[in-house]
Amino acid sequence: MKPVKYNSALIIGMGLIGSSICRALKKNNLASNVYGLDNSKDVIKKCRNLNLVSDIQEDLSHFKQQFELIIICSPLSTYKNIFLKINKFVTNKTLLTDVGSTKLSVIDDFKETIDNNNILFVPSHPIAGLEKSGPEHGISKLFENRYCILTPINKNETFIKEISNLWKSIGMKIEIMDADHHDRVLAMTSHIPQLIAYSVVNTATNLETEIKNEVIKYSAGGLRDFTRLAGSDPIMWRDIYSKNKIAVLEMLDRFSEDLLIFKKSIQNDDINFLENKFKNSREIRRIIEQLGQAGTFDPTEKK
Amino acid sequence: MKPVKYNSALIIGMGLIGSSICRALKKNNLASNVYGLDNSKDVIKKCRNLNLVSDIQEDLSHFKQQFELIIICSPLSTYKNIFLKINKFVTNKTLLTDVGSTKLSVIDDFKETIDNNNILFVPSHPIAGLEKSGPEHGISKLFENRYCILTPINKNETFIKEISNLWKSIGMKIEIMDADHHDRVLAMTSHIPQLIAYSVVNTATNLETEIKNEVIKYSAGGLRDFTRLAGSDPIMWRDIYSKNKIAVLEMLDRFSEDLLIFKKSIQNDDINFLENKFKNSREIRRIIEQLGQAGTFDPTEKK
Repeated sequence: MKPVKYNSALIIGMGLIGSSICRALKKNNLASNVYGLDNSKDVIKKCRNLNLVSDIQEDLSHFKQQFELIIICSPLSTYKNIFLKINKFVTNKTLLTDVGSTKLSVIDDFKETIDNNNILFVPSHPIAGLEKSGPEHGISKLFENRYCILTPINKNETFIKEISNLWKSIGMKIEIMDADHHDRVLAMTSHIPQLIAYSVVNTATNLETEIKNEVIKYSAGGLRDFTRLAGSDPIMWRDIYSKNKIAVLEMLDRFSEDLLIFKKSIQNDDINFLENKFKNSREIRRIIEQLGQAGTFDPTEKK
Repeated sequence: MKPVKYNSALIIGMGLIGSSICRALKKNNLASNVYGLDNSKDVIKKCRNLNLVSDIQEDLSHFKQQFELIIICSPLSTYKNIFLKINKFVTNKTLLTDVGSTKLSVIDDFKETIDNNNILFVPSHPIAGLEKSGPEHGISKLFENRYCILTPINKNETFIKEISNLWKSIGMKIEIMDADHHDRVLAMTSHIPQLIAYSVVNTATNLETEIKNEVIKYSAGGLRDFTRLAGSDPIMWRDIYSKNKIAVLEMLDRFSEDLLIFKKSIQNDDINFLENKFKNSREIRRIIEQLGQAGTFDPTEKK
């Protein structure tokens, strides 16, 4: 792998992921200057205070220079508008990628808006995250040993390789697949668990007031793990369900059917069924741990 | 709080929780000798190799001495048999408690089997855990800052206080409530999240083979948090669903109704509904963090 180094990179959306990429680019010496773009005055202020970027602006047109690399790290509902602005702004050859959690919608937005041949776009999805939002929570190590899925629009091997190398340089493993396949797989590995986490937290906190307070108090019994997911950025997730509707609804139906089977087995005291299913789940967990994709959980509190 | 110290304590079931209590008793100097009882030769061997206990046996009748304190830390389906053996074994005043995740069933089993006035039983549920099983994974800090719920059978304040002090001495906060209330609250905070985690892992891994492998590979998108829960001891959980059937089925119906509302809001593109619910969930997470009940999650791998 040939190491890449860009003179100037622009990150659009300096939240948790954007600021983590910024930190990773700097730590791995992959860009001489990293710039930021964000429509939140609060985020801009935080980035300046943290000395994260060479410069940060609220609007793309405020930049006088061009960028060799642009990475979009903002919610999916902002893409169309961002693409329109990039389409107008770019005058030199520019490598463009993103981190969006759905890929069909991103490619549609791109095709609808971009007709500038200087823009070389390779859609990406680095599968890494944390329930915190904001540039102050970003960490450079977030991407290490995690997968990054690319869903290229065309077969331009040069640019696919260049974007692959970029993600590899910050510790990621690359997989290439079709956008529709990506959206189905992610519906199951990410969008459904997240939706269910939201739904459980909602059920728990809609109980009678007395129980509601207790539910929060005794959440160490399992609910807290659901609230961790449910602590993520609401706008990001709202957009995902709107952009990956079909795959999410399909997987949700499958889940609901399976849950009904679990319910019936409890009603019918079918403890063998439950035991077998629970044992299978434990095996899956072992595999995820062996693959080094489990993260690290400490049941005690951080001091 | 008066610190307690027992000459001899017996832990029945030296798995994750039992061995963690054993470590916590020793670390906090609460018992001169901690003994173990376990029906697994493998667990007995591990406890001996780890030098966890003064002695460990496979059958209660093998012990020649009495114990001042006995703590049951085995799956709920084993309680009746254990109570019968304790009923026969105990000749001196003995404080008895347990760690079972349901309390109505435990009290029923107790009343059905125990008529020995030397046995002073205060049912407990220390709400602390980890997805690992076995004595090698126990940690003495597991109970620090976590809640322990007591559901006393009678109003004997002396023994309730003594058991309270025991749990407090290993770092726990005490709450006292009725057993049926406990079982409903825990259904929502623990048994439902766990069941749903199992069900999601089951749905994900029942997909077509190709997607199944990918689902595991890309689990860092959220599924991995469900597999963490689903990595817990299958026998323990099987027993919980059999013993807390009514409350679990009630809460499961509530959850299914709520999930349907989420589904319809996705179908109808009601993004405001989703955004509001997601924002509420994030607030709940903040409260749990403020209460110091969140645990610590590190998205990177342990080296």
